[in-house]
Amino acid sequence: MLTQEVCGSLGNFAGLNQLKLELNSLPAIDVGDYIAELPPEDQAITFRLLSKDQATSVFEYLPPEVREQLLGSLHRAEVCHIIEAMRPDDRAVLFEELPAGVVKRLLQQLSPPERQATATILGYAEGTTGRVMTTEYVRLRQGLSVEAALSKIRLSDRDKETIYYAYVTDDNRKLLQVVSLRQLLFSIPEVLIRDIASDRVIKTSTDTPQEETARLMKRYDLLALPVVDREDRLVGIVTIDDMVDILEEEATEDIQKLAGVSGGDEAALSPPYITLRKRLPWLLANIVLYIGAASAIAPFQHVISVLPVISVIMPIMANSSGNVAFQVLSVTVRGLGVGEVTPKDTWQVLRKEVLAGMGTAIALGISLSLLSLLWAHPTERWVAPVAGLVMVSNVLIAAVAGTFLPMALTRLKLDPALISGPLMTTMLDGVGFMLFLSMISLGVRISHFHV
Amino acid sequence: MLTQEVCGSLGNFAGLNQLKLELNSLPAIDVGDYIAELPPEDQAITFRLLSKDQATSVFEYLPPEVREQLLGSLHRAEVCHIIEAMRPDDRAVLFEELPAGVVKRLLQQLSPPERQATATILGYAEGTTGRVMTTEYVRLRQGLSVEAALSKIRLSDRDKETIYYAYVTDDNRKLLQVVSLRQLLFSIPEVLIRDIASDRVIKTSTDTPQEETARLMKRYDLLALPVVDREDRLVGIVTIDDMVDILEEEATEDIQKLAGVSGGDEAALSPPYITLRKRLPWLLANIVLYIGAASAIAPFQHVISVLPVISVIMPIMANSSGNVAFQVLSVTVRGLGVGEVTPKDTWQVLRKEVLAGMGTAIALGISLSLLSLLWAHPTERWVAPVAGLVMVSNVLIAAVAGTFLPMALTRLKLDPALISGPLMTTMLDGVGFMLFLSMISLGVRISHFHV
Repeated sequence: MLTQEVCGSLGNFAGLNQLKLELNSLPAIDVGDYIAELPPEDQAITFRLLSKDQATSVFEYLPPEVREQLLGSLHRAEVCHIIEAMRPDDRAVLFEELPAGVVKRLLQQLSPPERQATATILGYAEGTTGRVMTTEYVRLRQGLSVEAALSKIRLSDRDKETIYYAYVTDDNRKLLQVVSLRQLLFSIPEVLIRDIASDRVIKTSTDTPQEETARLMKRYDLLALPVVDREDRLVGIVTIDDMVDILEEEATEDIQKLAGVSGGDEAALSPPYITLRKRLPWLLANIVLYIGAASAIAPFQHVISVLPVISVIMPIMANSSGNVAFQVLSVTVRGLGVGEVTPKDTWQVLRKEVLAGMGTAIALGISLSLLSLLWAHPTERWVAPVAGLVMVSNVLIAAVAGTFLPMALTRLKLDPALISGPLMTTMLDGVGFMLFLSMISLGVRISHFHV
Repeated sequence: MLTQEVCGSLGNFAGLNQLKLELNSLPAIDVGDYIAELPPEDQAITFRLLSKDQATSVFEYLPPEVREQLLGSLHRAEVCHIIEAMRPDDRAVLFEELPAGVVKRLLQQLSPPERQATATILGYAEGTTGRVMTTEYVRLRQGLSVEAALSKIRLSDRDKETIYYAYVTDDNRKLLQVVSLRQLLFSIPEVLIRDIASDRVIKTSTDTPQEETARLMKRYDLLALPVVDREDRLVGIVTIDDMVDILEEEATEDIQKLAGVSGGDEAALSPPYITLRKRLPWLLANIVLYIGAASAIAPFQHVISVLPVISVIMPIMANSSGNVAFQVLSVTVRGLGVGEVTPKDTWQVLRKEVLAGMGTAIALGISLSLLSLLWAHPTERWVAPVAGLVMVSNVLIAAVAGTFLPMALTRLKLDPALISGPLMTTMLDGVGFMLFLSMISLGVRISHFHV
């Protein structure tokens, strides 16, 4: 298989042995990154240099397109080994990416218990805890002694995701207690598990949203959490490493939704067409919504002809109230996201935002009034306090809506980030322009009347 | 101490015993939340119901103001016990909050090793890994057998932060190897530590920024990471639970900086004056900067008087290009934050954003042109394609600046989130208005010339 050409790009045979040694001792994620950056023709050959264990670990870290290509170019037996040795939750993720036909063939080649585990995980809805749990964990009976439990752990499969917690169940797999390896090691060998294990088991369920499970683990500083089904039977565990990834993805989604990037997190290196698909619909929807805001201006074009300084003031007003909206939303949506506040705190948060908003409103109102004076002709100066007043009203609306709407959405079990910054600014512009131009138009009429 | 009045608010004596039992068996964080929400006069009394161990754990979860008050109302011996039993890193956090005089007194009451550990941690700069590490970890010699190592771990202090990793050092504490408890349990008792421990130790240093250390742990799925000093000597470890908190805080900061909330993360329930202090400077700075953008409009007021439809178009243009800027920034800044992209990927990300930007620019340009036709009088229709062209240019500027500026800041070792959304939108408005109005003004002059 190793032609001169390949050796040329990978180095000579002596170098190849060195490379093999390196690849098998480096952390799997680093090897994954290395292989992903090789030219496609070298990827399969390099991958074959890995030991079976390392190959399985590295495979989990490769990008989807490299995985799919490798599955095509490896021998059937090699593929079988990797798929069989993968952890059920990682295998489920792989199967989601692959074409249905390939998945079906691969499922048939799995051993019955592994096939069962994968089918179970794939049976849970996307985004639920069932989808990220692993079915490999240590289970103990209450009547076991500490010594017997430690022996059982020692003799168990080395591939178990974690051995640092063991779960105590009855014959029907009903979850009763939890015990840490630390507790086992610090206990007298003859003591029974039931006497040292803790009865207060913090647990999650297969249908719990992944973020909620992750927040639970973060709150209680846990390394693993048992997952039960609707009948309270232990069916799997989730581990902190997967939960860290989920918390990070959730934060990315929060940031991007605030900025109007929709539908799951977008990677900085996604292909341009994915980027377009995630961003353009929002932009176009917003420009259509903006017809509403702009329609508030259109009927007043005659006023603007008479008082063109308004056209200088309006963009500053829109820009400033938009900034306030983004600030309020970022704090509220993130606070809801990390569970720092819940809908029951609505009044408390509103009170704080309105108080802070009043300070902001007065400062921005005065600033806008002063700036308006800068560009106004002497006869136009009466416009300045009107602009200041509308600014005050816009800031207060932003404070109330930016707090209340995400809170209300959360109470309705909807995503608080549905109220994105762009949506809020469009709404604020519409209200602000309408108010401002109506007042100015009234002022113009009154002054004409006086003249 | 328990007067009738107090008993009234806490329930009767029977209830008190029940409460005591509950408080000592619940997770410390839940008890902390419970005490924090009690009226201040009940907090110290309730806290006294806790066992010594539970009291120490709960104390770490109380909000700063409750902690400080408790320290004042507890007996000297009780305070000593809690402070002595705290983990050095948590103690350092507490000392940062307290007045210097109190800290000095408390430090004097600590045992010499604990005082030393605290002084060491407080000696590192804020935000560095040294500040969040713990000095309690398991250290082994290479010549020890697995059996002896396990005995050592069993006999060690139960309060060690983690026993799931042990670190192998030489006599000068130079870090040589790492071994997990899992490896120890799965090894033959007579084997020497040097033969099973791993030589490839992933480690961090005391001056490494906390976020960088957290990213390292996330990348390699580690539960704990050794921290070395400049001479490569082991001085502490950091654990995943603290790192999860750091990743979350960093994400919150990213979101809030994008929205123009400055200086560390703001909690949804911060007092209004803190909120004002964090948000108002940005808003005022921005309104001052906006003088630049508005100055682009002011000289063209006569053109607007003649063609008032422009005043309808400009806000749509500003709003849409602002949205594009927020989208691009959110993806780039977060990508840099999570380490998904680095400055060396600048050209690759730029290429993608420009390609996606061209699609966006064309779609938004056409939309704005069509909308402009909606409000334009027949004689003003020539304004529509001009608006579309400026929109195209604004989107492309947003794509390039939104990608390039954060990347360049990162390369200069500055925070990429310094380029906030508000800053970008102000800049884009200035450039867009200037371009649009110059072209329109030219158009007006040409048409006058023809007429």
